[in-house]
Amino acid sequence: MTAGQAPMFSFALEGTAGHARAGTLQTPHGEVPTPAFMPVGTYGTVRGLHPAEVRRAGARMILGNTYHLHLRPGEDVVRSLGGLHAFSHWDRPMLTDSGGFQVFSLEGLRTIEEEGVAFQSHIDGSYRTITPERAVEIQWALGADIAMQFDHVVPGGAPHALAREGMERSLRWLDRCKARHVALQAADDSLPRVSASPPPAATQALWPIVQGGTHSDLRRASLEGILERGPWTGIAIGGLSVGEPKPVMHAVLDELAPVLPMDVPRYLMGVGFPQDLLEGIARGVDLFDCVAPTRNGRHGSAWISTGRVNLRSSLHRLSKEPLDAECDCETCGTFSRGYLRHLFVAGEILGLRLVSIHNVRFLIRLAEQARAHVLDGTFDGWSREWLRRYQLRGES
Amino acid sequence: MTAGQAPMFSFALEGTAGHARAGTLQTPHGEVPTPAFMPVGTYGTVRGLHPAEVRRAGARMILGNTYHLHLRPGEDVVRSLGGLHAFSHWDRPMLTDSGGFQVFSLEGLRTIEEEGVAFQSHIDGSYRTITPERAVEIQWALGADIAMQFDHVVPGGAPHALAREGMERSLRWLDRCKARHVALQAADDSLPRVSASPPPAATQALWPIVQGGTHSDLRRASLEGILERGPWTGIAIGGLSVGEPKPVMHAVLDELAPVLPMDVPRYLMGVGFPQDLLEGIARGVDLFDCVAPTRNGRHGSAWISTGRVNLRSSLHRLSKEPLDAECDCETCGTFSRGYLRHLFVAGEILGLRLVSIHNVRFLIRLAEQARAHVLDGTFDGWSREWLRRYQLRGES
Repeated sequence: MTAGQAPMFSFALEGTAGHARAGTLQTPHGEVPTPAFMPVGTYGTVRGLHPAEVRRAGARMILGNTYHLHLRPGEDVVRSLGGLHAFSHWDRPMLTDSGGFQVFSLEGLRTIEEEGVAFQSHIDGSYRTITPERAVEIQWALGADIAMQFDHVVPGGAPHALAREGMERSLRWLDRCKARHVALQAADDSLPRVSASPPPAATQALWPIVQGGTHSDLRRASLEGILERGPWTGIAIGGLSVGEPKPVMHAVLDELAPVLPMDVPRYLMGVGFPQDLLEGIARGVDLFDCVAPTRNGRHGSAWISTGRVNLRSSLHRLSKEPLDAECDCETCGTFSRGYLRHLFVAGEILGLRLVSIHNVRFLIRLAEQARAHVLDGTFDGWSREWLRRYQLRGES
Repeated sequence: MTAGQAPMFSFALEGTAGHARAGTLQTPHGEVPTPAFMPVGTYGTVRGLHPAEVRRAGARMILGNTYHLHLRPGEDVVRSLGGLHAFSHWDRPMLTDSGGFQVFSLEGLRTIEEEGVAFQSHIDGSYRTITPERAVEIQWALGADIAMQFDHVVPGGAPHALAREGMERSLRWLDRCKARHVALQAADDSLPRVSASPPPAATQALWPIVQGGTHSDLRRASLEGILERGPWTGIAIGGLSVGEPKPVMHAVLDELAPVLPMDVPRYLMGVGFPQDLLEGIARGVDLFDCVAPTRNGRHGSAWISTGRVNLRSSLHRLSKEPLDAECDCETCGTFSRGYLRHLFVAGEILGLRLVSIHNVRFLIRLAEQARAHVLDGTFDGWSREWLRRYQLRGES
């Protein structure tokens, strides 16, 4: 059975408001109501957080980084310890990227050929190669519910010729990814089972990635090529939020919204600042991921409904107020801004954890609110007002 | 009303086994069954842990460091934000040290005079002075249940003359601490209330510290001086575990055990490795504190019932075993050694947190077990067997 036909994956569209959508993605590890934000667990942990905290923040699905997990601890170790779900104690849906974005980011340390990408590990300088087949094998060993194709990512401002080269190669690599993925599934019994956590031996889905840079003809050609190779249980949009201006990203999403199939979830890779989430949802995106909530959290930078807050600021020294009075996260219900500021000034790691919890919850709640407003038909007005309020004042 | 007469503090001795004791300390923020281990929350947080984790690890009482909190964020900030309990979201008993140990550790950066100690902040180099009166005022502002006297701490191997100087000065400083503490309590209504958390305006106890280095005549003289100045709701033993050999520490405790009053809790300051805990309990100690559980945890070093485990070791790379199969902590019930090792190798801060949780729980549980064995009269045999097993094998 191929990934496209796997019965454990389905998507039910439950409502729309313009291009904005609300649905439910079904995976072997459970449901994901969409739109949804996926926190990123680079090394098998959403940085600084306990899986129970990620769960309590409302995360229904998280993302693991194949490039990082391949280097440390290695997919063989993860597989030996029961797969990524059991290893990291996360029993809800999980997706792994293919490592494509990371290896293409290793400017000067990697060589791109048709066969794959040769690169030097950023950790120990060792030489390694990732091919489409290897990317699929690594992800199979990691055992997430959803694996991504290995793709050729080009920079944000890439000219047409380069963007075309990346797009076309990504399609050829998709063929190779799919062939290897089908073979792994067919050989299922002779291979180690994917995950020791329930349900055992879950079948993994493979999702393709629309490439083509900022060029609408290439994006459409990429999508056509992908659909010819389908069916798929989900389709990702890659190569955005990689340096291009926001209006250009929006234009690409506007182009794709009406031509993407309605009945599969759409995943906008690596995107997840608050405004981007709402702009993406308005353009039909169902799934998002981004490291910003935890990366910003580590630096004491928090999102709240009226903008950004820098918790290192002396403004908060004597503040008894919660970080965000409108937030329902564990941090906002418990600690004062004054205490959070103290933790950052004193270099106490509890601080980055508490702000990371808030930021993760903030994005997840924003997606939850968007879903509710799509379902009751008020998304447009709500979203406009939300963005107006968020952008009203500067950082404090 | 003086600290010694404060009705909110009491100690009930419930059982003995030789010099080992089991009792219950009553404070304004609740009971502490003893013997008990207090985790250390230097800057208003037990490093790396959420107060809910510290609570779930079974901690009934924690310690805050006055020297550190005075420098950052400053006792005025803590008081403005409701006192140390509310500030750090800890609603169980809390004790603050006096800062004496820390300022005396600032070798080369401090000058000792009869008036007090002048020192340079280790953070910004600013010049500051702590006197007995200031130490009490700072602790009053912090608002813990129990404040410690400001004492003159001498090094572990201090000769008789120096140890005598420190011991006698500590007694003179105890007079000044007590006078200031009584004045603060008398002026209670005109001063900011100690804590916003229940119970409001809790009365704070002041505890004296037995000094005298490793010299038994000085230790006895110190205790006599303290008792003349009493009554007290608790008595601490300071100036141990500061470089002297273990048998010397045990000899001092052996000397003190029969002469310390039975009806007050005895607190051995800064002591808390597993063996030290049992050796101390055998010599009549009721309370312990130590930063080792979290400091070791940050370095991947864990205590288990059969010795120490270094989680960075490649021995654990493929281990599905829990850190300690006999432990009931959140970490041991959830994660494998293989995963913990991965977190340390990858530099993920979740690792130090998970091992800190285990180490804290390990010491708290050891004290709980000791208490049960004192109460059922089996402490000696159990303790001997525990130590034998713990020391049986090397580090792994």
